[in-house]
Amino acid sequence: MATAATPTVPAQPSSEWPDFFALGEAMHALATELFPLPRSLTGPGYRRTLELLEELTGPAERHRFATGERVFDWTIPPEWTIHDAWIKGPDGELLLSLEQSNLHVVGYSVPVHRRLPLEELQPHLHSLPEQPEAIPYRTSYYRRDWGFCLPDAQRRGLPSGDYEVLIDADLTSGHVELAEVVVPGTTSAEVLFSTYCCHPSMANNELSGPVLAAHLARLVRARAQQPRFTYRFLFVPETIGAIAYLSRFGERLKRRLVAGYVITCVGDPGAFTYKRSRRGDSLADRVAEHCLRHSGHEWRDREFFATGSDERQYCSPGFDLPVGSLMRSMYGTYPEYHTSLDDLSLITPRALGETLDLYWRIVEALEANRTFEATLPCCEPNLGSRGLYPTTGGASHRAQRVADMMHLLNFCDGGPDLLAVADRANRPLAPLARLAETLTQQGLLRTRDGERA
Amino acid sequence: MATAATPTVPAQPSSEWPDFFALGEAMHALATELFPLPRSLTGPGYRRTLELLEELTGPAERHRFATGERVFDWTIPPEWTIHDAWIKGPDGELLLSLEQSNLHVVGYSVPVHRRLPLEELQPHLHSLPEQPEAIPYRTSYYRRDWGFCLPDAQRRGLPSGDYEVLIDADLTSGHVELAEVVVPGTTSAEVLFSTYCCHPSMANNELSGPVLAAHLARLVRARAQQPRFTYRFLFVPETIGAIAYLSRFGERLKRRLVAGYVITCVGDPGAFTYKRSRRGDSLADRVAEHCLRHSGHEWRDREFFATGSDERQYCSPGFDLPVGSLMRSMYGTYPEYHTSLDDLSLITPRALGETLDLYWRIVEALEANRTFEATLPCCEPNLGSRGLYPTTGGASHRAQRVADMMHLLNFCDGGPDLLAVADRANRPLAPLARLAETLTQQGLLRTRDGERA
Amino acid sequence: MATAATPTVPAQPSSEWPDFFALGEAMHALATELFPLPRSLTGPGYRRTLELLEELTGPAERHRFATGERVFDWTIPPEWTIHDAWIKGPDGELLLSLEQSNLHVVGYSVPVHRRLPLEELQPHLHSLPEQPEAIPYRTSYYRRDWGFCLPDAQRRGLPSGDYEVLIDADLTSGHVELAEVVVPGTTSAEVLFSTYCCHPSMANNELSGPVLAAHLARLVRARAQQPRFTYRFLFVPETIGAIAYLSRFGERLKRRLVAGYVITCVGDPGAFTYKRSRRGDSLADRVAEHCLRHSGHEWRDREFFATGSDERQYCSPGFDLPVGSLMRSMYGTYPEYHTSLDDLSLITPRALGETLDLYWRIVEALEANRTFEATLPCCEPNLGSRGLYPTTGGASHRAQRVADMMHLLNFCDGGPDLLAVADRANRPLAPLARLAETLTQQGLLRTRDGERA
Repeated sequence: MATAATPTVPAQPSSEWPDFFALGEAMHALATELFPLPRSLTGPGYRRTLELLEELTGPAERHRFATGERVFDWTIPPEWTIHDAWIKGPDGELLLSLEQSNLHVVGYSVPVHRRLPLEELQPHLHSLPEQPEAIPYRTSYYRRDWGFCLPDAQRRGLPSGDYEVLIDADLTSGHVELAEVVVPGTTSAEVLFSTYCCHPSMANNELSGPVLAAHLARLVRARAQQPRFTYRFLFVPETIGAIAYLSRFGERLKRRLVAGYVITCVGDPGAFTYKRSRRGDSLADRVAEHCLRHSGHEWRDREFFATGSDERQYCSPGFDLPVGSLMRSMYGTYPEYHTSLDDLSLITPRALGETLDLYWRIVEALEANRTFEATLPCCEPNLGSRGLYPTTGGASHRAQRVADMMHLLNFCDGGPDLLAVADRANRPLAPLARLAETLTQQGLLRTRDGERA
Repeated sequence: MATAATPTVPAQPSSEWPDFFALGEAMHALATELFPLPRSLTGPGYRRTLELLEELTGPAERHRFATGERVFDWTIPPEWTIHDAWIKGPDGELLLSLEQSNLHVVGYSVPVHRRLPLEELQPHLHSLPEQPEAIPYRTSYYRRDWGFCLPDAQRRGLPSGDYEVLIDADLTSGHVELAEVVVPGTTSAEVLFSTYCCHPSMANNELSGPVLAAHLARLVRARAQQPRFTYRFLFVPETIGAIAYLSRFGERLKRRLVAGYVITCVGDPGAFTYKRSRRGDSLADRVAEHCLRHSGHEWRDREFFATGSDERQYCSPGFDLPVGSLMRSMYGTYPEYHTSLDDLSLITPRALGETLDLYWRIVEALEANRTFEATLPCCEPNLGSRGLYPTTGGASHRAQRVADMMHLLNFCDGGPDLLAVADRANRPLAPLARLAETLTQQGLLRTRDGERA
Repeated sequence: MATAATPTVPAQPSSEWPDFFALGEAMHALATELFPLPRSLTGPGYRRTLELLEELTGPAERHRFATGERVFDWTIPPEWTIHDAWIKGPDGELLLSLEQSNLHVVGYSVPVHRRLPLEELQPHLHSLPEQPEAIPYRTSYYRRDWGFCLPDAQRRGLPSGDYEVLIDADLTSGHVELAEVVVPGTTSAEVLFSTYCCHPSMANNELSGPVLAAHLARLVRARAQQPRFTYRFLFVPETIGAIAYLSRFGERLKRRLVAGYVITCVGDPGAFTYKRSRRGDSLADRVAEHCLRHSGHEWRDREFFATGSDERQYCSPGFDLPVGSLMRSMYGTYPEYHTSLDDLSLITPRALGETLDLYWRIVEALEANRTFEATLPCCEPNLGSRGLYPTTGGASHRAQRVADMMHLLNFCDGGPDLLAVADRANRPLAPLARLAETLTQQGLLRTRDGERA
């Protein structure tokens, strides 16, 4: 009988497929606009960032947590507002200032204004001997301290003598604030995309995340058909924001979440990295890895580990949510990470566009991934009498289409979902989903539990 | 203590082992005799084929399904009898005729006799531009049509002008007919070998299948000891025959079948291919792959896929039977497939003999594969006091025999069957089965559920 | 966030870590002392061996089984005492004698004193044509026979003529005797180390085993903290001793044993071999393979097979105990095995010390391997507020320590034991166990079932 040839047919994007090259340019432009804002866990720079993102996503719900409030094992910190910061040398010349780079001041520094000799200043200086041109990124959220970050080359040239330092900052009662964009679906099952906005003046980690998440939210909101799942896009300060959110909404997520992703480090042109959820085989993992396998891009598979970003909280054992993270070059693995070298030149419109494309394919795959069962499970249905044999296209295209139909009619038995059925044949989900729709219209497949086909 | 050296000892065929070289010659002779018969789903050529096979197998039961009868999603087609077919050129010369090759006429062509210009004839011609010397094999079982198949080289040389075409055929009410040879066993559990006889004038696909199946049936019937399993050998027209059979007997197979194989493409000297059942780890799969692993032959393992031959029906999700297919070069993967080049030179006596040998080993392995348990499970039995230590043969032979006995006495615990016990040591089943018989006679092993040792 | 770099940090032995180089010397000295004793299943040489080992281990319990007693399928043999044995040649010269080597006489030979021509002597001689300088090791425990073993080179030079042979031995009613050293733990769960003392005048197989087991017993007895498990060290004659022990204590072992090892072939400098228990994934297997993986030594993994040493009995299907065997060069795989070439030059102090070190690591790993669960499973605990972030050591050391803490707090959820948690990160158990203790003291982890932390 007919051979089971399985030539690789690229998934055909529908005519509505977004223009990800153009979107990549828009994302880079937005990152450029956000870059100079003095972000931290809290404060005006962080709030202004949320407002600018909201212009793109449409209205976001705000969740506020007051300074001093307990969220699990943590306490909401005060708000930090930085006005000015500088160091002047022994001869009074300005050595560095906040104006030059937000990274020059240690985040959450307490206010200080004094003169002190170099030996006493040194413990408050941070630099990287192995990267002498880079300003490191440092914070001291939960220990009262102050400090400055500077290139090691500059630090080594400091003459002895007395220095004048100023950090004009407020630490006041206020709120940690989260923004959540919700796109309601036709069912109560939920999908989460979580990103963070607390890193000042760095590009890949971390402006690429919120910029991509905002564009993804916009695309999902603008989708032609209402999604089956309810999509939540979460913009938080890292760690404390995710912990605060889970303290209020974690139990709901445990009941409803089917898949989630932490969006971070998504703008550089390096190979993709997928870090799996703690479960290792959750729907989030299966869908992301399916999309990566069929993307043509180079990618690496990483098992879950307990350091990293907010997946640490979502995947803590008390929640163990199906949340992974699709990145390009992972945090901690590229030399510019957490320094002033992680600037706008490190992220490219093309890379941002490619990653958004992949996240969009994940959304579409989640939506398409239903569980079908054959209505005529005993022997194969007569495809010819239904006019289902393809009559157009080349021989190999037609053979593939027949093989796909036969594959669906055999393996869709109400057990594995469409993704598992596609993976069993190492076929991309999209063309099988379209064929499954055709076969459902022909009455040869049906979805389980009355799911919309 | 003694080392666990496991030298590879070839399985010793018993003295009754059939002469597969001689049987290979006999199979090729039978294929030569059957080659010119005008086979199709139905009709005199198909019936004559069954009769000739029955001379070898002994009496077969016939199952008949009348034209128009519904079998699952299908309708039994009319009978097709082809009397004559030819094309004459503009100058009246005979260009091709049924007499030259059964493949020249599209199977199930409706009768036609007319003159028509070349342009009108072309849509009824079928050829293979990439194999210009080959006549392709085409049928139109379920769509009323007529046509001729010819070498593309000949087609390209046809002058313009008026052609006279004749297809003298009948499409009449009748029956699809299946032949079933049954060798009863001592238990109600069953083994199925299924092959098909509807392909005209091709050798590997498909005369090798029925010819081998008939010889296998003869061997099983002639076996010295009555088998444990009931063996069914099924000769059908492909697809409609298997569907018809399952519509009548499928529920019985679901209750009783322990292993089955579709026999097709078994005569060429290419490497073996084993296509697994849909379950992927059925007894059929385990036994076939065990025999292949220990055969010394080159072979390929293929997971089940939903195109192919009649395993499509046996493994449809409503049945999901333990049916695989042991082939040489698989359908669709060799260039002569479904053309006139698949002729008697493509299959060899030696290849047919080797494949029959393997199918016979599968039968013997199924018969030998019982589940044993040690009667003295606490510590090893004293083999010396029972005179069980081998005293003849070389040191490595004796060490292997001791290792085999110890292996059986340790791993036969009433759980895994003998095949699993053998596979755990990567040892062929046959010598372990003989040792298990010895140990059973010594009272050290027993079969479960009173199975005959 | 912080990278998940996982540099390999060698496990830090505590300050109490034994000096395994010195212990290696002591083990070799003890083997040298034991070497000349005429050991067999029974008799004075065997008893004297037990007494000398007991001087090291402290008091051992003796278990006695009388000649003629049934133990499962076996019968306790008589005691064998060998006084003298020799062969004199045709001219009266002494060709070989027991005094020269215990291996010259076949173990359990019946007494004999006669003159006989060379042709009649030959069936009583044993030699190895492929190793002409080696005296083979032979016994005849359960068949009454007598014989001599000698180098094949010597045998080939024997002139024809009459020989005088003497074997002055007693076979009398007596006992098979086992020695068991027990170190009680705080729980009823047990760990077994089993070795055998029946091989005369061979070094790797088998003096290395009892010598190492005795030193291990001494270390466990001298351990600063009482162990959680009760440790049993068993010194037996091979096969019959293990069978006898199991006939009396097997049911208790089935209830209580969590891990066990047969100690044999542990003194040569070859690569390590670990032969798994029949279950293949028992705690014994998991701990031994963990320790080997992190040892830096070369090693081989062997699945269980039913020949070998006393693991055959412990892993017989009626017991199926979690007993593996950690060896250097495995029995039967080195050319000196079971010959006079397996002498004291084959084992080295260094190799003995390394192996004892590994067995000691196994003990410590078993003791450390508790099951923890996080007390604050929802989101990560605030390590900073507890002063848990490391402030000393290099950056990569500190990063590893943080990663280890995060890993423990995430994966310790009351399910997997600490070993599984460590293996998931491919980290050695020891540093994670110390961190788990710290986190338990901090109230962030707790052991299940009130286990002592």
